[in-house]
Amino acid sequence: MSEQSNLAYAGLSAAARGRGAAGAGAKPPRGAKPGSGRKGRTPRPPKPRERATASDLARKQRDISVSEFFAKNRHLLGFDNPAKALLTTVKEGVDNALDACEEAGIAPDVRVEILQKSESRFRVAIQDNGPGIVKSQVPKIFGRLLYGSKFHRLRQSRGQQGIGISAAGMFGLLTTGKPVKIVTRTGRGKPAQCFELVIDTRSNEPKVRRDEIVKWDPPHGTRVEIELEGSYRGGQHSVDAYIRQIALANPHAQIDYLPPAPQSKAPQGKAPQGKTGKAAAQKAQAPEAQGLRRFPRVTKELPPETAEISPHPYGVELGVLMQMFRDTRSRNLRGCLQADFSRVSGRLADEICERAGVRSNRKPAEVSRNEAERIHHAIQQTKIMAPPTDCIAPIGEALLEKALRKEVQADFYATLTRRPAVYRGNPFLIEVGLAYGGALSAEEPISVYRFANRVPLQYQQGACAITKAVSGTDWKSYQLQQPRGALPVGPMVLMLHIASVWVPFTSESKEAIAHYPEIVKEMRLGLQECGRRVAIHIRRRRREADEAKKRAYIEQYIPQVAVGLQEILGFANKERDSVVTKLTDVLKRSRKL
Amino acid sequence: MSEQSNLAYAGLSAAARGRGAAGAGAKPPRGAKPGSGRKGRTPRPPKPRERATASDLARKQRDISVSEFFAKNRHLLGFDNPAKALLTTVKEGVDNALDACEEAGIAPDVRVEILQKSESRFRVAIQDNGPGIVKSQVPKIFGRLLYGSKFHRLRQSRGQQGIGISAAGMFGLLTTGKPVKIVTRTGRGKPAQCFELVIDTRSNEPKVRRDEIVKWDPPHGTRVEIELEGSYRGGQHSVDAYIRQIALANPHAQIDYLPPAPQSKAPQGKAPQGKTGKAAAQKAQAPEAQGLRRFPRVTKELPPETAEISPHPYGVELGVLMQMFRDTRSRNLRGCLQADFSRVSGRLADEICERAGVRSNRKPAEVSRNEAERIHHAIQQTKIMAPPTDCIAPIGEALLEKALRKEVQADFYATLTRRPAVYRGNPFLIEVGLAYGGALSAEEPISVYRFANRVPLQYQQGACAITKAVSGTDWKSYQLQQPRGALPVGPMVLMLHIASVWVPFTSESKEAIAHYPEIVKEMRLGLQECGRRVAIHIRRRRREADEAKKRAYIEQYIPQVAVGLQEILGFANKERDSVVTKLTDVLKRSRKL
Repeated sequence: MSEQSNLAYAGLSAAARGRGAAGAGAKPPRGAKPGSGRKGRTPRPPKPRERATASDLARKQRDISVSEFFAKNRHLLGFDNPAKALLTTVKEGVDNALDACEEAGIAPDVRVEILQKSESRFRVAIQDNGPGIVKSQVPKIFGRLLYGSKFHRLRQSRGQQGIGISAAGMFGLLTTGKPVKIVTRTGRGKPAQCFELVIDTRSNEPKVRRDEIVKWDPPHGTRVEIELEGSYRGGQHSVDAYIRQIALANPHAQIDYLPPAPQSKAPQGKAPQGKTGKAAAQKAQAPEAQGLRRFPRVTKELPPETAEISPHPYGVELGVLMQMFRDTRSRNLRGCLQADFSRVSGRLADEICERAGVRSNRKPAEVSRNEAERIHHAIQQTKIMAPPTDCIAPIGEALLEKALRKEVQADFYATLTRRPAVYRGNPFLIEVGLAYGGALSAEEPISVYRFANRVPLQYQQGACAITKAVSGTDWKSYQLQQPRGALPVGPMVLMLHIASVWVPFTSESKEAIAHYPEIVKEMRLGLQECGRRVAIHIRRRRREADEAKKRAYIEQYIPQVAVGLQEILGFANKERDSVVTKLTDVLKRSRKL
Repeated sequence: MSEQSNLAYAGLSAAARGRGAAGAGAKPPRGAKPGSGRKGRTPRPPKPRERATASDLARKQRDISVSEFFAKNRHLLGFDNPAKALLTTVKEGVDNALDACEEAGIAPDVRVEILQKSESRFRVAIQDNGPGIVKSQVPKIFGRLLYGSKFHRLRQSRGQQGIGISAAGMFGLLTTGKPVKIVTRTGRGKPAQCFELVIDTRSNEPKVRRDEIVKWDPPHGTRVEIELEGSYRGGQHSVDAYIRQIALANPHAQIDYLPPAPQSKAPQGKAPQGKTGKAAAQKAQAPEAQGLRRFPRVTKELPPETAEISPHPYGVELGVLMQMFRDTRSRNLRGCLQADFSRVSGRLADEICERAGVRSNRKPAEVSRNEAERIHHAIQQTKIMAPPTDCIAPIGEALLEKALRKEVQADFYATLTRRPAVYRGNPFLIEVGLAYGGALSAEEPISVYRFANRVPLQYQQGACAITKAVSGTDWKSYQLQQPRGALPVGPMVLMLHIASVWVPFTSESKEAIAHYPEIVKEMRLGLQECGRRVAIHIRRRRREADEAKKRAYIEQYIPQVAVGLQEILGFANKERDSVVTKLTDVLKRSRKL
């Protein structure tokens, strides 16, 4: 076949070349056109060239490995610049550490170390006291993109894609050539395994460079070390800000953070290379008290463990439904609808099938496209209970307020945990925290802290559904100034948290929430409720201020009234004073403050 | 090994479960905490549950296929909502059509048809007169993500990822269950092949449902039909706006556009299903003159064909360099540097090797990490010519101005094509167009039209480097108002075009440019140059207005002066009139207008 077509296309090839030549060669190339600009920079006229035929094009078609794709598009993963690369690496490591501890029911002790090896080179280490990783899984988890346990389930966790930590390792490899180092131990009495591995971007497969048993003290846990080109900066987008915020949103975790030692920048000068240099650097860091910052846990209670759920029928699209019918283990439609979806009882399954006009004892794999479409339609018309809510663990109103009080000095706080809602069949839940007044600036736009599954979002505020929801809320009706379509202006801080079994991020780097209408709506409702509360507070404050003004005004005249009465009625001074006291009492009773 | 570890972990398993129980079971779950909010909505306390051990976690680890990944994260590809899904499908089809025609040196005739099948269901067809597609390649091109000819090369084209059109097909399949239909023919006398295929998201492999020879008139070309859930809307983000803009940026292409017929919405009511319905709908559409909009080509010249280039040494990172040394066909370093990179001569290769202290006749595959690092360092210190520029085809200042004049009624136009520059080793080039005054509103923020490789960008303006560059330019010094950090306000339209062998988009949906500093810098320089020109224009206009005012003022007094002179010197009326004439002449000569 392919030979035949190659022969066949040889003829066309000549024809197409003829056309190509006519197109590119017959007329003078465009370089000669008059430039309208002053400098008239026009590109050099390209040489006429033979153009491609269908078979030329076919020869160039190739598979693209997902590692190659992301290596070239690394900004999609949060590695656009050195400062962000350092933050992303820390973030991916900490996400995994917290997830692992929580899944194993261990109160997380996470340690983040950043060692500066030269001006633009850092070694990041993230260590947890989690359950450790089974030896055979280590290479794939750290050396293969799109591999993990969190993608194929509907359950709230920080990681969800199976990309993050391998991508950080890949970025380290690309910029420094150094492998990722992993030390892990799954329990007391078990050996600690040490790996060094790199990702082969061509094949998206791990290559193990070192695999041996080492001496390591912790009874269980994992330590990942990645060396990368980066930049350590301060400010809103810094690692320091991230660590502070992650501690806030995870009050059950203890975070130890060792930022780069300031002295290591100047004196060392060149990057310490080779084993001696590394050992020396580690030794210099050894009396680690210096610079170590501890964020102790605020509560010993772990967040409630979240359940894994089946997809909710309302969010399943026709194509997915057809796929589920093909893949199900159930023998009939009724069983499939009941077993593979959440909130579908046998009775409800029968109701759906009846409405669709498909027998409920049909074999799911034999359901046609047309029948599936009718079932899909019937599902939308059937009343089905909202998905179960124990799959989502909110931070909770009390802890949210605690976190806000810790971060912000204000007069008034409001927090709200909304009921779970659903987008595309995925349950999610919005929490809103609000702080108003106090030391906050009244002249600047408000600050918005964004969180998703307890992870702070620091970049791409403009692209985030949270920002859209805040800007789209009518804050003027809640007594705040607001330029059209922008963040309100006033002494306020907002904290929004979305918890979901699947958070829809606008990019793989997980920096902003996508604009699903259901999500934006829930956020707005939460903001409106908090807005109403703050409006009551602001109005009361204003009323109080008005009252105080009026009262002060009346109080000012009470002595004059008394003196007037004294003159008219011939009061003694004592009677005059008693009139002042009585009038003041009346004022106090009538205008409560 | 794995058995051993499974046995080993059984012990830990119990221990971890103990811990898990202590964590989740010993204390009452958090649901009981006092809520600070008024409604105190707290989630139901979850049941204590056995938590996961390392081996539990290991069992859940799985590969994630890239199709599954993007099916779940479809918003990354531009399918977040029905209106955008329709636009993205059209866009991906047109991108491919234009690329194919240009690569084959054919002046593109592209036809876009949108047929509304029910309120929320559309059938999109994109047809080109390109070189067609070799039969064996059709399934993979349309039924496999990350497959294509454009990723592994450095050459300017609209498509670059090998995702777009297959993703559109996948979205169609997910929402309607319908396969993608492709008809293609590679030349007169060749058969026209018709395919219907779906993507298997589990394996990211195409499944061919139909593969046969059909009767099809065009001598060569490709027609793709995708049926999807969508929404047809107007406005800035609409398909109509896209078609208009793509025609503007591609003056060499003829675009025929058949929007959904307005009458098909109401009367048909239900979606026509099955063959008769479809045939009927197509028949109803047949006298297609109604509603067809043609955007004729403005120029018959194709854009100069762009060359494929090798990576420039400055943009190659250490890890990539090491990979290239391993993969090269050259036998020694000198040859490798010369052959695999652009702008490296033999002399320069020697210079680099000498500076790095590595012999230039070394076998590349044997170069150590340390040596590679030295070579990488030496490259940065060596002066290497900028990459060749014939790999980029700008629109050009003349055509840019033509396009702007067509789109915008203004007083003043400036266009600029900058010299190519480099980010991460990739040549790119910025073009700026500016229109000022005329009918444009002076009270609103300016409009910014964004283009990348001749494709209009319609979404995510806020996330785009173009917006950042425009907001970050100091327009006040160019006589425009500008709120701090925002778009300037005034009667102005800006058009920015980035052409590159690899455009770094912020997401796979290719809606915004990532913030690479080199790119933002080039954009700023272009904006500043156009800013200076418009400032000269604005200042001249102001000066002219001032002059006119002054002149009118002086002119008013010339007769009075003449009358005064007449009275003092006893002029005749004739002499007085001659004084008026002379003074007016002096005024004209001294204050040129």
